[in-house]
Amino acid sequence: MDAVLQRCSVREYMNKAVPEELFYELLEAGMCAPSAGNERPWHFIVITERSLLEGITGFHAHSQMLKQAPAAIIVCADMNRDKYPGVGYWIQDCAAATENILIAAQDKGLGTCWLGVYPRENRVAGMRKLLKLPDHMIPFSAIAVGYPAAVKSPGIRYDESRVHLNRW
Amino acid sequence: MDAVLQRCSVREYMNKAVPEELFYELLEAGMCAPSAGNERPWHFIVITERSLLEGITGFHAHSQMLKQAPAAIIVCADMNRDKYPGVGYWIQDCAAATENILIAAQDKGLGTCWLGVYPRENRVAGMRKLLKLPDHMIPFSAIAVGYPAAVKSPGIRYDESRVHLNRW
Repeated sequence: MDAVLQRCSVREYMNKAVPEELFYELLEAGMCAPSAGNERPWHFIVITERSLLEGITGFHAHSQMLKQAPAAIIVCADMNRDKYPGVGYWIQDCAAATENILIAAQDKGLGTCWLGVYPRENRVAGMRKLLKLPDHMIPFSAIAVGYPAAVKSPGIRYDESRVHLNRW
Repeated sequence: MDAVLQRCSVREYMNKAVPEELFYELLEAGMCAPSAGNERPWHFIVITERSLLEGITGFHAHSQMLKQAPAAIIVCADMNRDKYPGVGYWIQDCAAATENILIAAQDKGLGTCWLGVYPRENRVAGMRKLLKLPDHMIPFSAIAVGYPAAVKSPGIRYDESRVHLNRW
């Protein structure tokens, strides 16, 4: 619960690698997300090579923290696993998996920043080309991952005006 | 982290009400989700009235557990807060908020089931009518909430074939 409440976007990172085994814990969390009809459309690409991280910054304007971050996780969707063509539930599935990774990272003392990829055409195309993704694989999100340079406190985010009981 | 790994869909509930203060904790978790450009498009409607829960089962075929569940939370998106018209980032925002609510509920000993609403037209229209939502409000998901009738164990969900390091 603390990890959910304390998580916030981190854009500055320590110059410190993330131990490889931690990535598998984050991805396990991602795979524990629910999905429509249990379709589990996700694939995950862990990126630690500096040239690839830099490569992303070439086509994604909001990803400049990847010049400093030690790693990124790209969440992709396998359209061959999409049980509901045209409905787009895979978007919701991949968003839930992305959020689980953010929470797990917070729990492990890591900081993250969720970078939108899909449906921005240039970002989808850039990521496809950089990672040589097959045609049935859609890059959905990119998550910057690393140890935060500073501890941030998100403050109170509860907003009573968004809460309704039994009627609008 | 345990809440992330142990969460699974619950479709049978005890005949036991959820204390009202717990809903506010779940909604706080929902509001801690990240959102595109910090747009926070979400509104939440907590439903505990039996007639409304039954009403949902009239237009949503997969929601029959609401005949037994003591409550539901409807996650809605306010299109007046959508900073990226036509892009649909609000879908990803609301999915992340929905997932946070599921995790917080697990942490509190509650069970949940995520029911897809958007973009199914009949479900969106049915929910709009039942809850008298204004036109700019889109019902995104419905979450059944209650105390689980039985403790379920989700088993291992890590799948190595979905993991890639630095390349496809």
